[in-house]
Formats: sequence, C-alpha cells, structure tokens
Amino acid sequence: MDVRKIILIVCDGMSDRAVKSLDGKTPLEYAHTPNLDKLAEIGCTGLLDILSPGVPPGSDSAHLALFGYEPEKYYPGRGAIEALGANIPVEDGVLACRFNLSTVVEKKVSEGVTLIVKDRRAGRISSEDARYLIECLQVKLNNFKDVKVKIIPNVEHRGILVIEGEGLSGDVSDSDPHEVESCVNRCEPLSNADNFQAAERTANIINEIVKSSYFLLKEHDINRLRIKRGLPAANIILPRGAGLVKKVDPFFKVWGLKAACIAKLALYKGVARYVGMDVYDVPEATGTVNTNVEAKFKMAVELLKKYDYVFVHVKGTDSASHDRKPLEKVKMIEKIDSAFKIILDEIVLPGKTVVALTSDHSTSCELGIHIGDPPALAVYAPDIVPDDVKQFNERAVLKGGLGRVKAVDLMKILLNYSCRAMEYGLKPNRETRLYRSTECSPLVI
Amino acid sequence: MDVRKIILIVCDGMSDRAVKSLDGKTPLEYAHTPNLDKLAEIGCTGLLDILSPGVPPGSDSAHLALFGYEPEKYYPGRGAIEALGANIPVEDGVLACRFNLSTVVEKKVSEGVTLIVKDRRAGRISSEDARYLIECLQVKLNNFKDVKVKIIPNVEHRGILVIEGEGLSGDVSDSDPHEVESCVNRCEPLSNADNFQAAERTANIINEIVKSSYFLLKEHDINRLRIKRGLPAANIILPRGAGLVKKVDPFFKVWGLKAACIAKLALYKGVARYVGMDVYDVPEATGTVNTNVEAKFKMAVELLKKYDYVFVHVKGTDSASHDRKPLEKVKMIEKIDSAFKIILDEIVLPGKTVVALTSDHSTSCELGIHIGDPPALAVYAPDIVPDDVKQFNERAVLKGGLGRVKAVDLMKILLNYSCRAMEYGLKPNRETRLYRSTECSPLVI
Repeated sequence: MDVRKIILIVCDGMSDRAVKSLDGKTPLEYAHTPNLDKLAEIGCTGLLDILSPGVPPGSDSAHLALFGYEPEKYYPGRGAIEALGANIPVEDGVLACRFNLSTVVEKKVSEGVTLIVKDRRAGRISSEDARYLIECLQVKLNNFKDVKVKIIPNVEHRGILVIEGEGLSGDVSDSDPHEVESCVNRCEPLSNADNFQAAERTANIINEIVKSSYFLLKEHDINRLRIKRGLPAANIILPRGAGLVKKVDPFFKVWGLKAACIAKLALYKGVARYVGMDVYDVPEATGTVNTNVEAKFKMAVELLKKYDYVFVHVKGTDSASHDRKPLEKVKMIEKIDSAFKIILDEIVLPGKTVVALTSDHSTSCELGIHIGDPPALAVYAPDIVPDDVKQFNERAVLKGGLGRVKAVDLMKILLNYSCRAMEYGLKPNRETRLYRSTECSPLVI
Repeated sequence: MDVRKIILIVCDGMSDRAVKSLDGKTPLEYAHTPNLDKLAEIGCTGLLDILSPGVPPGSDSAHLALFGYEPEKYYPGRGAIEALGANIPVEDGVLACRFNLSTVVEKKVSEGVTLIVKDRRAGRISSEDARYLIECLQVKLNNFKDVKVKIIPNVEHRGILVIEGEGLSGDVSDSDPHEVESCVNRCEPLSNADNFQAAERTANIINEIVKSSYFLLKEHDINRLRIKRGLPAANIILPRGAGLVKKVDPFFKVWGLKAACIAKLALYKGVARYVGMDVYDVPEATGTVNTNVEAKFKMAVELLKKYDYVFVHVKGTDSASHDRKPLEKVKMIEKIDSAFKIILDEIVLPGKTVVALTSDHSTSCELGIHIGDPPALAVYAPDIVPDDVKQFNERAVLKGGLGRVKAVDLMKILLNYSCRAMEYGLKPNRETRLYRSTECSPLVI
C-alpha cells in the first residue's frame, strides 16, 4: 500500500472572533482568501479544541498537542522549550525557567520594601549589555547553597535560568507578575504540587536568586551608564515557566514519521526539537508580518521530498492580533493565502499528500490576547469525503464534517488519512505501535 | 412508563471514503438505498468514533465499544473472543491466543535460521487435515515446562492456543507477522506491559511452542502428503492476539436489557457471548456477500418479541471492501437496503422501538483495509427530533444532528431514547444503575 506524506501548516493565532471594525466579521471572513477556501472546498473542515473547550493555550503547549503529545503529561515548562529553541543544551532532570531582564523600583510598604516592575523588558536592552550583566550574575551566583545555577543569556532581555541539584520541582509560581506597575511576585510552591517539599525548596532558591540579582545588578556599571543615557536599568531577573526538563519519546518513535519543522522563532523550534524534529530556518523569514511566506512554503515543498511529515509555522497573524491591528491581520491572512497557491499546486493537486491547515490557538485582535475558542481546521486527503463547506473561516467551518475534534487527536486523524494507521489490537512488535511499521524481530530457530 | 425495545444493526465496514471508480462517491452514496435513506430522513444522524478519532478498530474491539464496554478496559484479546465464538470454553484467568496453521520456509541469516511466511492460511487447509496436525501437537506439547498447553482446532486453518499457569500476561507481541514474505516474529513482551516479567515469561513459552510446532509438523505425514499433492504444508502455528481471559459484568446487569445477537461468524458471536448475550444463527446466512439478509432481519423481528435488545450483524460489506471490489460492495449495500424494508415495516413504523444503524468501522474498498474514519450512524425513536439529513451516507450525515459521538456512548444514547435511562444522582439500589429497574430491596421492619 502506498502510504502518504503529511504537511501541517499552522498560522499562529489566525482564528479570531467577530471584530466590530471589520463589520462584525472575523479577519478570516473579511480577508479575500480564494486559495485557503479551495482547500476547505475539496477537503473536510471543522474546529480544533487545542487543549480543552474554552482554555486559551500558550503557543508551546498548543504545538505539543498538535504534534500528538498530551500537554498535561508532556509539557516540560516554558524554560526548557525556550532553551531548546535557542540551542542551549539543557539536560534531563534539571530545572529550567525562562527569565526576563527587567526594570524595577523599590516601594516601601508596611512589611518592608517591595519591588515594582516598571519595564518587563528593560527597554528591550541590547543583547550585548544583557550579556555583561548576566555574566556578572553567573560569576557571583554560580554555586548557590547546594545547587548549581546557570544563568544563560539569549537574545536581548531574554534568558534561561537553569538549576541543577537534588529535590527540585517545577511546581512553583512565576516571579514575573506579567504586568507593569505590579510588584515582583514571591515565587511560591503551587498548592497542587506533586512534591510540595521540593516545590518549597525550589521556590526559596528562586526567591534568593531573584533578590540577589537585584542587589548585584542595581549598582552595576552598565546600569549606571544606562541611567545616564536615559535608559531603564536592567536591575533584576524575573523567572517564569519553571519546569523539570524531561525526555519524551521522539516523534519518529511515536508516529513512525521522519519529521521536519520550518519556523523562525525560538519557541516553535524549541517544541519541534523537544519532540525530535529536524529544524529548518528560512533566511527570508522574519517571524513578523513582513515575513516571506512563499519562501517557507517553497521550502516545505522541497523538504517533503525527503521527510514524511513537514510542519510549517507562520507567526505574523498572531503578532498582528497581539498588536490589536485587525487590518494588519487581514493583510497577513491575504499574504498567506496568496503564498498558499504553492501548496495547492505543488502538494495538494498531485494528490499524494495529506494536508492540514489550522492555528495553534485563536487570538483576538480586538482584545490582543489568546482566547480559548477552537480554531478553524481544514484537512485534505485524496480520498477524503468532503463536506459542503466552501470557505475557510470560523463561521463556515461550524458546519464542517470533521465536527469538533481535539488537537491531540489530530496526528491520529492525519495518520489515518495517510494510510499509516494501525488496526487496534494488533501487536506486530514490542512497541504498541499506532502506525504500520516494517520493522520485525525475527524468531531464530 | 412504556419503555421501548432496541435494535442495533451493524453492517460491517459499510462506511468508506470517496472512491475514484465510483465517480468520487462512496459506495453508500453510489448505491440506491431508498429504505436506509428513509431511516435517515425520519431519524437523526451523525458520525460514530468507534475507538478514538483516526484509530482503525478491529471488529472485536469495535463491537465491545458498540455494546458500551470501553475496549481499553474490557478487551480480552482476540484469542478469548474467537474461543467464545467457536464455543470453546476458556476459563477465567487463562491465556488465550488465536493462531493460524501457516506455511513457512527456512531462510538462513547471519544470526541463524529464520522462517519466512509463504501462506498465512496454509492454502486454507481443510478442517480435517488441520485437526490431525493439531492433535499431534496437543499430544506432544501437553505439558510444557510448568504450564498446561491446549491447542484447539477451529474451522480450517484457525485455532486457539490456551496456556494455563501462574505468572502469565497478555502483553506480548504477535508471532504472526500479518503479511506473507515477512519473517515469523519473535514473540516479545510489550514495552508497556503491566507486568513485564510475566510478559517475558509468556513470550518465551510462546516462542518455544512456535518453534516446537515447526519441528513437529514439518515432517508430519499429512504434510508429506500435502506436498505430494501440490498443496502448501501446514508446518507451523502462528499465535496472535494474546490476552488473559477475564469475566465482565453481563449486558443484562450493566444495561438492564435482555439481549440477543444474530450473527454468522465466530468473532461476532464471541463478543456477544463475552458480554452475555444469547446468540442466534440464521441457517440461510453465510457471512459473505451471498448471505440472506432478509432471513436475518425476519429473525430480528421475531426475537424482538421476547428480547429487549437485538443486535444484528451483516458481514458482506466488509468482505467486499477487503477484496477491493467497490461494485460488489455497492451491490451488497443495495441488498441490505432491499431487506431493510422488513425493518421499516415491522419495527420502525409500529413506532415502539429504538432503531440504530451503523458500521463497526469504515473499511476502504480502494485500500482494502480498516480505516479510522468514523462510520455513518442513524438513530430512530418515535419522539426523536429529526435533523435535515435525508440520505444515509458519509457525506450527508456530516450535517447530522447527533454530531460526532463515541461508540462507547451509543448504548446510553439508545437507553435514553428507549425511556430506560436513569437520572444521574439517583441511587435506587446498591448497583449504580444507568437504567430504570423495578428491583427493590425492601426494608423489613
């Protein structure tokens, strides 16, 4: 039997709600999208509950689900994903957090002095300045109590905090309050922590590191200079997204597919690396609305020649939503649609590939936030039974033939259409495979 | 309150995908089916996810789900089901495998000698020849290490291997590679086995039995004779579908329904017996496309007089699909439709019975395999709110009012339409019943 290859195209935050300034239409409805509509017409459509109805996903957990890994079970925390995305090696078992270099000011309250966040990104400090400051922290905080601490710079204000030692837990709250004018949070064990004692110990360590970072950075020469120049001082690190790094079975072992990822931004590369995909970058892509979508789709056509599964990530639709720019979002959608001609001509029409188009979550371009509405989904396979939906947008796919499915089931649905899915109950080898495999382990007589 | 009776009609593998040679229609769309369409028109339709979206079911696990038993929890393995179907008593706690008498040839590889499967059914050996060969094995392998081994012939190449003893597990891979020209697999403990040590021990025993069967059968007189006559030697047994036989709560206890099954083939009878249904055979039925569907439906009408629930299984649609004969499948569907007039006239029109029509899985008549697409479903009850769907086929029911439901929920849906479903939270007796029951356990004063 001829198995088929699979391409998954994720337009980040593309699905949306009814937008007043777009005559009550969604950006997908408002945009002119003949090519995306063509896919909806010849394929079958529906809605994809990324995590659970009504739950707004983060982009990292969302992609884990789209790759068929249950986030409740396999999500290692933002820190690990960002580290992998930046090609920073983090070992199995260590605790990793994402952190920002931020600007805080002191505020006296009855209990003592607290810290108020004035700029979460320290004026988007340059990577060079950030590196100096972080190196200073690293030298001073290298050995901290009985754990080993690594403070690793990434691009601009971004960094990774790694803590190595016994008895740690990722079940702790974020120091970063996620909003300016809020006070820096005390990191605390989550009340539902698997191991409360370890979480308590971890929270204490993180609080000490955060406090130390403030005392070490506030008088640092770089910050004196920045203040002189009218720039905000990068005088603290604010960790968030703590998680114990763990290995997962790679994509090839789980689904039997040799997989490639085309993405620009670290987070998406991180999730792809976490599940063991080969990661490709398109030089012309920017991760913004100015990106070159055509270049990405052309690379997908090429990569499908040597991979079984290609995942393409397009970011601009989400950025325009967070910036609350409906018309920019519409323009980005039309740009994707125009480039999508390549996918139609080179991948869909030859009729040998399973194609899925969706978003990792809906993002409201009125509210500027991720929302829990299930994004639109279109799936094409040469023998799929099409529904009557002829447009790719949130309203049209409400009547779609796929109905409302869970993102974590999408891989199984695509494997099924690719003629690779294995009949339940068969046990062809020691792995209880979900896909046909030619591997055998012969009986020797 | 007048409760209603229930009939479930399962046309095996009837749902399908778009078939090129049928002008891109599915066999159900292509066929002329006024009677099935009538049911869709007056009832409510939808899609039935048999196990999970995209997962191709085996017929045994599929029927368990249709009877409301979660396969992940209650599936005892193919061996136990087939044994029950053939009326071979298998006791609770024993290990049962299905096996085939097959034809293999030796092949030298670097590790030693392996066996290549040339015919998985040994030329569909006669039941008589098979019985001789299996009796010989039984005598020689009766006591094997510290377990008791039973090798039980069934029809033609089919048999059941039963192993009785302590510390056994069904979590082992199949010896049967499921394809000709593949090598006989070494039975291995599954990597996710509940009890790895027991699985390892079981795998070793099965490998020894398989090897012994080859050495005992290859020079057997019957095989010498077969070879002389140009027939393939039945020189090995290839077990698969191992499982520890376990008892489940019977259908009557779980759903409060006195249930009957009308089926021809052992597998379906086996699942029905496993859940404690009474099993009926129709002499005129054959389990093939030549079967007499009318006779089955007439018997269903009769049995509904004394049973609360009747399950009717029709096989031909699946056989035609596995044989990759789209037009034969269409013909079989039209034959079912024509016989379905009996169901309409005798069961639907009197308006006292809940009727469900579906498939246990979709089977692609282009690919010849079970696929994970959810089959079409139609449900009728006298007071059901009909949807707008007027045809019974995969495309039409995409707009069905039942949406996309799980097979394991079907029993609850049918109980509900039969006015037997119990309000959640009520506790009329010690069993947490899902159905109304007149049983009571009186307080004695």
